[in-house]
Parts: sequence; C-alpha cells; structure tokens
Amino acid sequence: MVDKVNLLEKFALFDTQWSPRIIGQMNDSHLKVVKVQGEFVWHKHDDTDEVFFTVKGSLIMHFRDKDVVVDEGELIVVPKGVEHKPEAIDECWIVLFEKAGTLNTGDADEEERTRHKVEWI
Amino acid sequence: MVDKVNLLEKFALFDTQWSPRIIGQMNDSHLKVVKVQGEFVWHKHDDTDEVFFTVKGSLIMHFRDKDVVVDEGELIVVPKGVEHKPEAIDECWIVLFEKAGTLNTGDADEEERTRHKVEWI
Repeated sequence: MVDKVNLLEKFALFDTQWSPRIIGQMNDSHLKVVKVQGEFVWHKHDDTDEVFFTVKGSLIMHFRDKDVVVDEGELIVVPKGVEHKPEAIDECWIVLFEKAGTLNTGDADEEERTRHKVEWI
Repeated sequence: MVDKVNLLEKFALFDTQWSPRIIGQMNDSHLKVVKVQGEFVWHKHDDTDEVFFTVKGSLIMHFRDKDVVVDEGELIVVPKGVEHKPEAIDECWIVLFEKAGTLNTGDADEEERTRHKVEWI
C-alpha cells in the first residue's frame, strides 16, 4: 500500500508533547512527528545522525559550543555522537528523521522522559 | 560544522528543472531539493525507498495501478522496486530523501535525463 501522508493531519491526531509518532519508513530509517515545548535533556545518539525539520514554531537546538534556532521551513542535521538539547519557548511541531529504533533520550539516563514504545499514526 | 538549512533559500539558488541538488546527509542517505514540471519517465530503484515531500505546488505520482496527488505539506514514500513516474502540471518544488548515490532515473534507459553528478548547494 503506497499512500501519501499529510503532515498537518498527522499533527492534529495528538497533543502530548515530547512523544514522537512514526509516520513513515525509508529503508532502515523512520520519519516521525513530535510536538515539543520547554527544555529537553542533553543527549547524543552514537549510531545515527538525526534530522529535525520545523513545521510550526521555532526550535532552539543547543550544542555545547553554540545554539541554533531552527524556524519554520528550516532543518538541521545533528551528526551522530554530537551532544544536543532541543528547546522550544512556544509549542513547536517537528518532523524527525533518524534510524528506526532510536530512543528519544539517546544516551541520557532519563527514564521518565524516555519513550520506549513509539507508535505509528 | 552543524548548521541549519532553509528550504526556500536553497530553492532560490537554482532554476533548472529535474536536476536534484543535495542539501543534507543523514547516515547513508541524502536530502535533496528538486524543481519539476512536466512528465518524467517510468523507473524504479531496486535498492532504496524514496521519500517525496512537496514544498510548493502539486506532484502527481503515477504508479502502475493508481495515481496519487501529493500536495504542499504532504509526502509519499515510494518503496524500493516499485515503478513510478513523477509528473507536475505547474512547477513543483520537492524535497527528496533517498539512499546516497541514487540515480534520478533509476533503472530507466534514459541517458539524456540522467543526472550522474549531483552537487551540494
């Protein structure tokens, strides 16, 4: 079954922040949607680069040496192994692209924020 | 160097249609931008799925058994091995996501339309 995906329709299906959902698969990688607001935790992913594409709002991506504000229509690729901490002042809607099975908290010891089960919507 | 990419700024850098440019890499995959208008050729990629995300306009993706219109803000994943033919009535701006090194014409014998060299912008 090959069908299209409408991003805004997917974002309309959920409200919970920091809880990614899968909307597509490309080879061994997943496309996900997530709503974020506030500060996340410092972490890194040793086995995958990670693409963040802002669909609505502004994402502040903190790195150890700088901050990058990723506005609507912009994307950033966080290379594997690079520590980062996402933040958003107002709610921000993001499309993520990363290796399937990637944990949202990476190597951080943050069980409460970790989403082990990521569902398709 | 980790920096953000603004999609519309990238699209403003070129006019040539059916000639993809690379704007990012995620693991072994490339993010590309391309402007299309008219009909492309039937082809398939045996070793990669391919994501088409419409940034501006409408993409008509023909499959052997159906057509899917992918409007602005929508995406479609064409699975590996599935024949498809992209078409656009008016110029359409697309973000592609596929395995690095993928030829635009896949298995089609269409030398004139094949872009062997795809540059970063």
